[in-house]
Amino acid sequence: MVRRGRSRDAGTETASPTTNYRNLVTPYEPLRLLSDDHVEHLHTSAIRYLADEGIRVLFDEAREIFAEAGCTVDGDMVRFDPDVIAEAIASAPSEFTLLGRNPAYDVHLGLGHVNLVPVGGPPFVSDLDRGRRDGTLADQENFLRMTEHFDVMSVAAPCVEPNDIPINIRHLHSIRSSMTLTHKPTFLFARGRDRVADNFEIIRLAYDITPEAFVEAPRCWTNVNVNSPRQLDIPMSMGIIDFARAGQVCILTPFTLAGAMAPVTMAGALVLQHMEVLAALTLSQLVRPGGPVVYGAFTSNVDMKSGSPAFGTPEAFKGALGSGQLARHVGLPWRSSGSSASTSVDAQGAYETMLNTWAAVLAGANWIMHAAGWQEGGLVASYEKFVADIDMCQIIAESLQPIGMTDADLALDAITDVGPGGHFFGVDHTLERYSTAFYDPLLFSRATYEQWDEEGRLTTEQRANAMWKQVLADYEQPPMDGAVAAQIDDFVERRIAEGGAPPD
Amino acid sequence: MVRRGRSRDAGTETASPTTNYRNLVTPYEPLRLLSDDHVEHLHTSAIRYLADEGIRVLFDEAREIFAEAGCTVDGDMVRFDPDVIAEAIASAPSEFTLLGRNPAYDVHLGLGHVNLVPVGGPPFVSDLDRGRRDGTLADQENFLRMTEHFDVMSVAAPCVEPNDIPINIRHLHSIRSSMTLTHKPTFLFARGRDRVADNFEIIRLAYDITPEAFVEAPRCWTNVNVNSPRQLDIPMSMGIIDFARAGQVCILTPFTLAGAMAPVTMAGALVLQHMEVLAALTLSQLVRPGGPVVYGAFTSNVDMKSGSPAFGTPEAFKGALGSGQLARHVGLPWRSSGSSASTSVDAQGAYETMLNTWAAVLAGANWIMHAAGWQEGGLVASYEKFVADIDMCQIIAESLQPIGMTDADLALDAITDVGPGGHFFGVDHTLERYSTAFYDPLLFSRATYEQWDEEGRLTTEQRANAMWKQVLADYEQPPMDGAVAAQIDDFVERRIAEGGAPPD
Repeated sequence: MVRRGRSRDAGTETASPTTNYRNLVTPYEPLRLLSDDHVEHLHTSAIRYLADEGIRVLFDEAREIFAEAGCTVDGDMVRFDPDVIAEAIASAPSEFTLLGRNPAYDVHLGLGHVNLVPVGGPPFVSDLDRGRRDGTLADQENFLRMTEHFDVMSVAAPCVEPNDIPINIRHLHSIRSSMTLTHKPTFLFARGRDRVADNFEIIRLAYDITPEAFVEAPRCWTNVNVNSPRQLDIPMSMGIIDFARAGQVCILTPFTLAGAMAPVTMAGALVLQHMEVLAALTLSQLVRPGGPVVYGAFTSNVDMKSGSPAFGTPEAFKGALGSGQLARHVGLPWRSSGSSASTSVDAQGAYETMLNTWAAVLAGANWIMHAAGWQEGGLVASYEKFVADIDMCQIIAESLQPIGMTDADLALDAITDVGPGGHFFGVDHTLERYSTAFYDPLLFSRATYEQWDEEGRLTTEQRANAMWKQVLADYEQPPMDGAVAAQIDDFVERRIAEGGAPPD
Repeated sequence: MVRRGRSRDAGTETASPTTNYRNLVTPYEPLRLLSDDHVEHLHTSAIRYLADEGIRVLFDEAREIFAEAGCTVDGDMVRFDPDVIAEAIASAPSEFTLLGRNPAYDVHLGLGHVNLVPVGGPPFVSDLDRGRRDGTLADQENFLRMTEHFDVMSVAAPCVEPNDIPINIRHLHSIRSSMTLTHKPTFLFARGRDRVADNFEIIRLAYDITPEAFVEAPRCWTNVNVNSPRQLDIPMSMGIIDFARAGQVCILTPFTLAGAMAPVTMAGALVLQHMEVLAALTLSQLVRPGGPVVYGAFTSNVDMKSGSPAFGTPEAFKGALGSGQLARHVGLPWRSSGSSASTSVDAQGAYETMLNTWAAVLAGANWIMHAAGWQEGGLVASYEKFVADIDMCQIIAESLQPIGMTDADLALDAITDVGPGGHFFGVDHTLERYSTAFYDPLLFSRATYEQWDEEGRLTTEQRANAMWKQVLADYEQPPMDGAVAAQIDDFVERRIAEGGAPPD
């Protein structure tokens, strides 16, 4: 709802453009890891491999779709006709808009667009007061409120699993919370056909549109992880099919952690990732040519001593650069991540998240998941990390804004007025601009050591603890028509009475 | 001396190139903030301003040099003939080598080269055991040992001020420590003619060369801060002249903190920075055409609420990108910084240092000062921050290495061997490469929450505390010929007996 950061005092003049943390667009050319020849080589190697060896598809409906299109199905193995892949690449849109409940919250995907997305998926939640514990619906609702509060977060995400809600009705509570607590386009899990149908219906009610209108434009998103290497399981295949049929956004993300589910070499991890995205993309486009899909890239590495996933690594940095090149090669918007292996809101967590998130932005990623609040390799959503990462995300957003280059911006008259050895604090040029000139951090302190010492030597984590409480206190629920809210409640109550829907 | 990070087991095979943390070269095109037209506009505006308005030069010898070259001297103001500036730009080398005491420690400056440099300048030092306190020679010596230990640090720096040594003999102790504790090219302060001469003489003795050979190639470096706005004071002008006469490396860094010593607009701060560098460059090149100089850029902003310097800001990010473009426009190697305002080794410090340091690397900076150990806006050198930042610097160094693209790197045979749904842990392709495949962090932990909890919930800062002690315990002093060491000692003792030299 509000934009923290620069204050916008009425009456102050500035030649600099107004910063808007929504609908960010990067002015920077993407960094390149690979030569064009190497990109083409990875791409053609992936297609040839899909044709010769293929992937395993565990869902019969998906295999039937591939078979009908002319792919070779042999048991649960599917080998791909390169022409079918080429058609899928051609039909997938290179840009599209994900609609918010309010047009101001629409989200654009396509070349140059940068969307920062909150943490998704952790079973645990953590804060300084209550420690690390199972996530609850109340926690997820708090993260939705924080997501709504900060413009730099593009969409709502499944920040933490509501473990206190029985599994068969969890999706109903989750989606109702998302629809009522934020205007932003929502995530939902592809965890079974009936659950997805429930979710779609509640979104349709919240947006107050017809079923026909619902499938005409995307209003929600999911992420499907391919079971690397080379396997699409039943729930994932079903999710791809269901989202394609409904015209909703499906991110296709191979789980290619080099050294474990992917080769230990980055070229091997990238070629595996690419073939898996192409296979999933083909399924999606066969169901609905032109449906909105996103090239998902999560290529990082494991720690070879422990086997645990590692984040914020140089390998992940290169993986992001290469992934961006491959995604642009096939003309798809693409997804990357900010993430960290750290178990606390300490320096390691910040180094790793900053490196990963910047790598994603500089690699030209259009959708950057886990950019705020992710901790412990994805096991924990941290309240304090969330707001600390928001400061980082806002710094990134500001870093994407151009600078003014007018005569007034060059300030040669002010330089003359100040004179040699003077200072600019008091001159008109400064006074006219000072309140909006620089990013004003949420948490990052410029206190002197003495001030910091007097105030109790608070760490970033401790300041973040006060900040998230303030954000929740300041939060204002977005308005919703009473009749719409009642329809949603009626639907949720009826489905709960019917026993909800278990995951498939 | 040793390279931490990837282990290099004998007999392991890898198609990936060997990583070398010395003499880093970036494979990435520099990020651009400004159009070519805007770069040219800032450049010509700076030159025109120097011609019309000029800068104040407080040192009469410097004014005489300018006057002799045809510049207009009016009181202490110097106005510049654009042709004189153009000649200085033309004569300044675009690349050069700074010699180590051992050729393996030579340092290259020029397009694409990336040198990461330790913290410089703080009066205070900090560690977890002893807290924040005045720096001592023993502390500086410890930082020199840590600098020698990690290959990713290119040169020795004045990490902390040895406040326990009387000012008149401090330079003698400092340079002797640097010459005996590390092979790397050393920094020295330009704080007075006699002191600089003492330093040069000790370096000459340590390198065991003639006075004629000394001035033929650079073996040490200094940094001169222009007193922004538009003023060159006596010690700074003297430093520029003395280093030029001796053919040693002088970094010319305007202290352009936007909103205080520079305009509040980034274009204004950049045009002021550029004119000040050009003025200092002209002085240097008039003394010694072709002498090694570096375009220094420190443009960041102040916090407009407190007036204190801010670091790791979006404004500093843009300042770095613009500075890189201006430096390349005049064909000079250039210097940037990693830095942070945080008072502790916490998340803020890591976010800020990572952002600044990456900004510098991606902006194409060739010399990145304060990349390890800087805290509290430059007031403190922290032992723990130093080793935490080393992990970051090594991650950056690894991120600059290309990936292998051979058939063995693409690993399609291994992908077939593993099969759908399998894993790569045990296959030969992994076993042959696992020990060198990924960066192995110094401090960044991938422990599970349970392990971390059992081990006492150590933060990055606490792990860093153990690490720097280990580094100091492992440190091996580089060998020095006994006669050379004796010559240095004799010189130092004689100069101490003579009363040393006070700063000018």
